[in-house]
Amino acid sequence: MAGPKKSNTGRVYASALAADAFARSVLSANGVPDAHAAIVANCLVHADLRGVDTHGLCRLPVYLDRLRAKLINPNPKLEPKRVTPVAATLDGENGFGFVIGLRAMQEAIDMAREYGIGIVSVKRSTHFGMAASYALPAVEAGMMAMVFSNASPAMPPWGAKSMLLGTNPFCMAAPGGKHRPIILDMSPAVAARGKIRRAERRGETIPLGYALDAQGKPTTDPKAALDGGVVLPIGEHKGSGISMFMDIFGGVISGANFGGDVGDQYKAYDRAQDVGHFFLAMKPNLFVSEDDYRARIGTLIERVRAAPPADGHAEVLLPGEPEDRIEEERRKRGIPYAASEVAALQDEAKKAGVQPLVVSDQPIS
Amino acid sequence: MAGPKKSNTGRVYASALAADAFARSVLSANGVPDAHAAIVANCLVHADLRGVDTHGLCRLPVYLDRLRAKLINPNPKLEPKRVTPVAATLDGENGFGFVIGLRAMQEAIDMAREYGIGIVSVKRSTHFGMAASYALPAVEAGMMAMVFSNASPAMPPWGAKSMLLGTNPFCMAAPGGKHRPIILDMSPAVAARGKIRRAERRGETIPLGYALDAQGKPTTDPKAALDGGVVLPIGEHKGSGISMFMDIFGGVISGANFGGDVGDQYKAYDRAQDVGHFFLAMKPNLFVSEDDYRARIGTLIERVRAAPPADGHAEVLLPGEPEDRIEEERRKRGIPYAASEVAALQDEAKKAGVQPLVVSDQPIS
Repeated sequence: MAGPKKSNTGRVYASALAADAFARSVLSANGVPDAHAAIVANCLVHADLRGVDTHGLCRLPVYLDRLRAKLINPNPKLEPKRVTPVAATLDGENGFGFVIGLRAMQEAIDMAREYGIGIVSVKRSTHFGMAASYALPAVEAGMMAMVFSNASPAMPPWGAKSMLLGTNPFCMAAPGGKHRPIILDMSPAVAARGKIRRAERRGETIPLGYALDAQGKPTTDPKAALDGGVVLPIGEHKGSGISMFMDIFGGVISGANFGGDVGDQYKAYDRAQDVGHFFLAMKPNLFVSEDDYRARIGTLIERVRAAPPADGHAEVLLPGEPEDRIEEERRKRGIPYAASEVAALQDEAKKAGVQPLVVSDQPIS
Repeated sequence: MAGPKKSNTGRVYASALAADAFARSVLSANGVPDAHAAIVANCLVHADLRGVDTHGLCRLPVYLDRLRAKLINPNPKLEPKRVTPVAATLDGENGFGFVIGLRAMQEAIDMAREYGIGIVSVKRSTHFGMAASYALPAVEAGMMAMVFSNASPAMPPWGAKSMLLGTNPFCMAAPGGKHRPIILDMSPAVAARGKIRRAERRGETIPLGYALDAQGKPTTDPKAALDGGVVLPIGEHKGSGISMFMDIFGGVISGANFGGDVGDQYKAYDRAQDVGHFFLAMKPNLFVSEDDYRARIGTLIERVRAAPPADGHAEVLLPGEPEDRIEEERRKRGIPYAASEVAALQDEAKKAGVQPLVVSDQPIS
């Protein structure tokens, strides 16, 4: 049954299973083939499970809007073309970024199996959610991975006041041997724009230092940050440079949009986004044996964990470990959603004529 | 002639030509073959020219100390072994990192010419100075590049108070078409340890936020930061994660030291450093034509430059552009060195029985 009435800042809970079934049924009802709907649903729910709430189910309404506006193609023909034995290009045909990204990384993995490394460049894609979604199949196949993408403008190049670069995801991953994989999935911004958007949706303020307003002044008001303002890069020119290279690897070399031309999926309804991505898979045992790799990565992980915590930290965690813990918790107790977000999802269920998302006003267990 | 007497914080000037000739003669006198001495001198002087003073001639005395202690091998046999058609491993045999790095990148470029991409993993190397030194030959060959390395511990993993990670260089580069190449060569620390060491040498303080002291408290005293203290990563867990991946790509997969085991070249005189590097070269015209690439990267560069400057900035620069400008200036007016740094260099000249560095107490022109 649908959740009880809640204030805008209230939380309700859904099981991963319920969230997944809901997303699949709404997507299918909107004309997305079952296999693709399953991939999109899985990526969105996985982001929610890992605490990357800004890239989860809350995005479903905008994806559906763009699908209905024919700006997302429900059924692209995805045929990677190898331009060398280790490099392929994939035209995403404006399909779901999730489906395109998984297909591309699979191709990179296939090439890496044979040659040790494989890269795939993608054009004509759309917002692909959490970059870790594409690193995961690589580490599950025993590979290291890089996942780069561009995105719609949200951040100025360092020294400028108006946005030109996206908060472009930078993701690197490595198998953890007997431990969980190490997955660094970061935005080059101090805070992802999605976090600011969520604060606005939830009526919260943002910390100083996250963003400038349209006049180039620091602000704590998410609305001011989103309304012509900009988010700021980490490390000043360093985060700016990282974002620029994500635009070069994702957009410039792929044939996709770049340099500020990737459309904002919330605003640009006159055209498809034409996002560009770059995927790299690489065997970690090319230069040392598999046993040595497992032992060495294990040593690194154990040394990081054993480092004495600084004031204010109870322990030292690896990249990806906070997300792993949230996932473990949320698989048991359910995914918390803002009631206002759930309302938008239930509207979609009604429009599509499918069952609403099953939520509870308490954690599941 | 040698420069006049100066206070410790005074500056003298040397031409790039004089600095190069000086470094080559001192290295040769210490048993380094001419061809290798020329490479090391060129890398050091180029770092000084580009304003990366922390990786320039001021490092020569420690390299020479380690050479005399037989911890740097003056004449390694460098033979990259291809483990796949696109991946090679190189045992640096404890030679100069500069010589090893250039050889490795050359191999990566050779493989990329044939297959579009090439990677080289290096073990048993030593401090290789400015990472941009290895990106430059790639962009000159029309390639994009990644240069990763680990380094001796200087930074805690995020959440810890004691150092385990290096301020590991992260470098990406792309040819600029009709413009200068874009070269991002960054440390994942708020400030490189070399900058703190230079402040100490020059008797200057460091800004708050650069480092913690041995007790984990913020400090402005470079001595306190260097004496058991730590430098801090950009973007908290993000810079920490980048550094960790530089250790994985540089050290874990190569067979080199990693996880805090790379020796500090200023302190660890009981063993060679065994630094690990990772080099990647890639054609930028695999997925779009060469003409298209040149036009597209040009558009990106021009859009970044045209972005309206924020308060306090006169213009917006690309990664590598500030260094290009310093180089242009220093090629004309000479490289400024601290008189205390020059004193250490002249001591080396005396020890080696070669001509001292020719300096002037005024800019050259």
